[in-house]
Amino acid sequence: MLRQLEDPDIGKHIYTLSAEIYPICRSITGDGVRNTLTHLSRHIDLSINEVPTGTQVFDCTIPREWNIRDAYIKNAQGERIVDFQGSNLHVLNYSSPVHAKLPLHELKKHVFTLPDQPDLVPYRTSYYAEGWGFCMADSRLMGLPDGIYEVLIDATLEHGHLTYGEYLHRGESDDEFLFSAHICHPSLANDNCSGLALLTHLAKRLAPLRTRYTYRFLFAPGTIGAITWLARNEARVPRIKHGLVVSCVGDAGGPTYKKSRRGDAIVDRAMIHVLRHAAPSPEILEFSPYGYDERQYCSPGFNLPVGLFQRSRFATFAEYHTSADNLDFIRPEHLASSYQMIATAIQIVENNWRPMSTCSKCEPQLGRRGLYFAVGGEKNAPADNMPLLWVLNLSDGEHSLLDIAERSNMPFAVIADAARLLEQQGLLRRPVGEAGEENLDRLEPGGAQFQNGRFIAR
Amino acid sequence: MLRQLEDPDIGKHIYTLSAEIYPICRSITGDGVRNTLTHLSRHIDLSINEVPTGTQVFDCTIPREWNIRDAYIKNAQGERIVDFQGSNLHVLNYSSPVHAKLPLHELKKHVFTLPDQPDLVPYRTSYYAEGWGFCMADSRLMGLPDGIYEVLIDATLEHGHLTYGEYLHRGESDDEFLFSAHICHPSLANDNCSGLALLTHLAKRLAPLRTRYTYRFLFAPGTIGAITWLARNEARVPRIKHGLVVSCVGDAGGPTYKKSRRGDAIVDRAMIHVLRHAAPSPEILEFSPYGYDERQYCSPGFNLPVGLFQRSRFATFAEYHTSADNLDFIRPEHLASSYQMIATAIQIVENNWRPMSTCSKCEPQLGRRGLYFAVGGEKNAPADNMPLLWVLNLSDGEHSLLDIAERSNMPFAVIADAARLLEQQGLLRRPVGEAGEENLDRLEPGGAQFQNGRFIAR
Amino acid sequence: MLRQLEDPDIGKHIYTLSAEIYPICRSITGDGVRNTLTHLSRHIDLSINEVPTGTQVFDCTIPREWNIRDAYIKNAQGERIVDFQGSNLHVLNYSSPVHAKLPLHELKKHVFTLPDQPDLVPYRTSYYAEGWGFCMADSRLMGLPDGIYEVLIDATLEHGHLTYGEYLHRGESDDEFLFSAHICHPSLANDNCSGLALLTHLAKRLAPLRTRYTYRFLFAPGTIGAITWLARNEARVPRIKHGLVVSCVGDAGGPTYKKSRRGDAIVDRAMIHVLRHAAPSPEILEFSPYGYDERQYCSPGFNLPVGLFQRSRFATFAEYHTSADNLDFIRPEHLASSYQMIATAIQIVENNWRPMSTCSKCEPQLGRRGLYFAVGGEKNAPADNMPLLWVLNLSDGEHSLLDIAERSNMPFAVIADAARLLEQQGLLRRPVGEAGEENLDRLEPGGAQFQNGRFIAR
Repeated sequence: MLRQLEDPDIGKHIYTLSAEIYPICRSITGDGVRNTLTHLSRHIDLSINEVPTGTQVFDCTIPREWNIRDAYIKNAQGERIVDFQGSNLHVLNYSSPVHAKLPLHELKKHVFTLPDQPDLVPYRTSYYAEGWGFCMADSRLMGLPDGIYEVLIDATLEHGHLTYGEYLHRGESDDEFLFSAHICHPSLANDNCSGLALLTHLAKRLAPLRTRYTYRFLFAPGTIGAITWLARNEARVPRIKHGLVVSCVGDAGGPTYKKSRRGDAIVDRAMIHVLRHAAPSPEILEFSPYGYDERQYCSPGFNLPVGLFQRSRFATFAEYHTSADNLDFIRPEHLASSYQMIATAIQIVENNWRPMSTCSKCEPQLGRRGLYFAVGGEKNAPADNMPLLWVLNLSDGEHSLLDIAERSNMPFAVIADAARLLEQQGLLRRPVGEAGEENLDRLEPGGAQFQNGRFIAR
Repeated sequence: MLRQLEDPDIGKHIYTLSAEIYPICRSITGDGVRNTLTHLSRHIDLSINEVPTGTQVFDCTIPREWNIRDAYIKNAQGERIVDFQGSNLHVLNYSSPVHAKLPLHELKKHVFTLPDQPDLVPYRTSYYAEGWGFCMADSRLMGLPDGIYEVLIDATLEHGHLTYGEYLHRGESDDEFLFSAHICHPSLANDNCSGLALLTHLAKRLAPLRTRYTYRFLFAPGTIGAITWLARNEARVPRIKHGLVVSCVGDAGGPTYKKSRRGDAIVDRAMIHVLRHAAPSPEILEFSPYGYDERQYCSPGFNLPVGLFQRSRFATFAEYHTSADNLDFIRPEHLASSYQMIATAIQIVENNWRPMSTCSKCEPQLGRRGLYFAVGGEKNAPADNMPLLWVLNLSDGEHSLLDIAERSNMPFAVIADAARLLEQQGLLRRPVGEAGEENLDRLEPGGAQFQNGRFIAR
Repeated sequence: MLRQLEDPDIGKHIYTLSAEIYPICRSITGDGVRNTLTHLSRHIDLSINEVPTGTQVFDCTIPREWNIRDAYIKNAQGERIVDFQGSNLHVLNYSSPVHAKLPLHELKKHVFTLPDQPDLVPYRTSYYAEGWGFCMADSRLMGLPDGIYEVLIDATLEHGHLTYGEYLHRGESDDEFLFSAHICHPSLANDNCSGLALLTHLAKRLAPLRTRYTYRFLFAPGTIGAITWLARNEARVPRIKHGLVVSCVGDAGGPTYKKSRRGDAIVDRAMIHVLRHAAPSPEILEFSPYGYDERQYCSPGFNLPVGLFQRSRFATFAEYHTSADNLDFIRPEHLASSYQMIATAIQIVENNWRPMSTCSKCEPQLGRRGLYFAVGGEKNAPADNMPLLWVLNLSDGEHSLLDIAERSNMPFAVIADAARLLEQQGLLRRPVGEAGEENLDRLEPGGAQFQNGRFIAR
């Protein structure tokens, strides 16, 4: 992976931040989003955007702002048998306010449970139709005696704003790499405290570095947030050359990459390359119009090169959208591994170039340059020098380093290192208009070197 | 399938007509073909074409007309041991007339049997070389005592005509969908009474309908009949946009689709789509230059988009070209299933269009339009609305509904219904020059609708 | 295979020549190469090329000439315990001269063994770094007592020449088919006495024949020899339309074909076609920049259509680069089989053309021309005539015979024969500019004919 982005404690840092923002009750609008952004902005210089209720964004309208102070169901004895203070999942997200007393059979019409997972509380929302409701464990609901219950949802649904945060890291080029994570889910650790925290720490470590690309990090509510950003930034959209939606990156499953609608964008190829070298059986999915905000980025009028990176595939794991998606479900080591895969994809787009051999007719004499071992004939010796041979053979100006890594089935860092060493020897040059040697110290590949004529990967 | 083409008794109707024409002794010319066409014309308004013997049709010449009244082999006792009146398969089809007495060893030179299927009578022809002969069960031949036998074939081979029948259903466009079945085989039920009867009933049910395409049904002797039609209709050939040769559609095997020489014609894609959704393991064959009249339609000078549809693949089933291809070998339920697959392919070409989203930048707000369920967050809920999301995502004017059905792996009718509902909501429009909304009531897809924000397939 | 190239004793002839040149101590320069070429020139009219030491060839320089008379390690008793006269593998190839006495632990620094194959002597070289050394069995080395040993390598490394041999068979066209075998390995039978001997006998049998292509046979030291030829023949390089590097063609493994860098050159398709029809599970490898001289021919500045043909894949068999690659390891029957595969590839490029049907609208009437059997209806009969039907169906001027052989999955010779017979019947013609009928007697395909309307392959 990219050496300057490495951090042996990265998993712990991401986990800590995920845990910090886990308790906050987020929704598509409201103070939950603002509080979360405040936590993230302790690490990076976030810009906070507020868009008024009623603003038209393409086919949609910014909804009212939702804020909630308290909510409960009390039994006849006045005991809180369902309590928002214990878990914000208990309230139907974006619920209308209510304060009433009603019999059990009426209450049940407003309660959501998971009969197949009777001890878990589901996560449910009412964005599309006004209403109020509670979520609770089915086993708990089944045990309730008949009687009159008091329900309170002390919430407001009022004219206000939709809030999203943005962090921009300027590179040498205006071309952008967009990272996007949804910020609307309440206490669900994997979905998506993990993605918010990972991207924050990635942005933090990228901040001091010189990069080729400009990196944009978007923390916005799902669907409506991405639509809002796109509607307000149409002029910037053509600059997005690569993009990744990041969610559910802390569990033990996957890794999973879902391709952009294009299917063969650089980010698709880079992520597939990374996952294939990082995991024994990664899941590579074709684009489909269900998932996260890649749905908006890949809508036909934009058709951006934006894929989705996850550990377990959404909607397929038992903990998905339940109270079991808690802080035990995500682990620092999985967060670290996800971070490393994304950092490696950054390394690829940063260091990808099309080498031209200065000696394209026949192979250059590597032995003379100390790039080949002294004694010939050993059966296994060539393997060490294969990265050099692959780069030289495909350095016709038509193949990028990513092309070469794919065709040779070698990790990109190994190929990029081989190209760097060959360029230092004068055996490769850059096509006119491509970034020059000075870029090499910018974001280094793996740091391989030659020892006794053998190519030693770090 | 296409609702207006549906008929719960279709299998029985096709079987009945197959059984009606089964006893007739057909050949490449003669009254057998005429009698068969008379039966078909009770259902549809057939035009009968007669082409004189000696007419040149491309490299071939219309042969003499063959008619037969009687044929037998009598033993020394004057008993008919082989009798044309019992089965017309007993005569070498297109045999010269003969009346002679000859010893068993001479007779055997003119008798065809199947030693590996000793109780079956083979079907054999002598179109390419003049001669006379009989076909019989090998077990029967083996049991014949030495002696003198009397043979009679009371047939004529004279200047006359080649006969074929044609039915044309005019659509809004002159572009044609050609259906073709061979009418030259005598008493073989699957090959091809089944195909003749199925196409007749399909034509009958199509007759009252408004269609986009013009449908041509050709009932002609194999090879020479197709060549004759092509030679006499060269100017019409470019209008053929889709075509299907239909034979052996009543047995329990398959289904089998053999691609046109092009391999990626709309009819190829439509039939493959239909078979994959209709059967667990359909047989999809690449084009090869052996088979039925697709050989002529796909000859290099025409290279028409014409495939072959069958149940069991020809020449691979034990009953092929034997007396076992009888009325027990075909069943109404298989005939009905074959009919439905063809009708579904018609539905596809009739209803295929390239939708354009009116809201291509980001997704339209389905919830507001009642196209999305009220409460969000359920793991399995999206599946219901996936047809809508797929259509919207691929409605860029570059994807047809068939493209979308293929990419989403959903039945065409489901995708077409989703597109119809979205068009009614104003979310899709038709590209300039494509058929408009008024066509939708012409040949309807499955008839899906929305209920409570869920897409309900019929 | 090509009939004029057939020889029932070809395996023995190739084996005999391999055995003749096996004992010679070859290297990248020196009399070993010259002696080998003398043996080959008894069969073909070789031109011998000498290129002086110090000549620049692209990035490389012709090295000094190496010659060796004797070499040994003597023990304290003066006995030759390692003796060059017994096997030239005992000397590190291209070793500097030395004459010294030294203790065992010093000697060991200059000795190469194979601890995993303790009874075999390895083949090692010192082309890239000056030094001296011996190779021996590890078991033998382990058994040596301490003491002083005398080493002698009576060799010279002096200004001289690099030597390579070339044989040119002129065809009707200047377009060339290049065959190349490395001549630098000492006593290794498979690698590459086998390749040198096979190509010599192929050239010998090609010599009297009229061919479409010009055939060039190059016998040159590996890497530096190919580079030298390319550097001295740049103007000729564009004439190379097909090429094959041939090595290790006598063992029981494979066959193996490694594609050219292009991957879809005619030679790639021809060799893959040949191997698939000749062996149950041939190994087809993608190009990689390690192997034999295809590395140079396929370097990006040339990118020639040159593949590699072998039995066992290099560096994967246990005998590779050891004393076990001896005359027992190669067999006449494997050499004959390798010869036949190469000859069949020659047949393909010689006889490949793009037929045009003279009767492209519908099929011609084969029966009238005696090209079809008299009695129709047999289930298996068509198989015999499928080559005719395939050729006719694809004779649109866009498909070559190789295209047709690939699509029909029939051997090229069968398709070429069918095309020849159809051309003789006037049913095919050649496109303007393609070689005409007179070429057919040049290098004939298999010699099929028609009997009783059946196509009979030889």
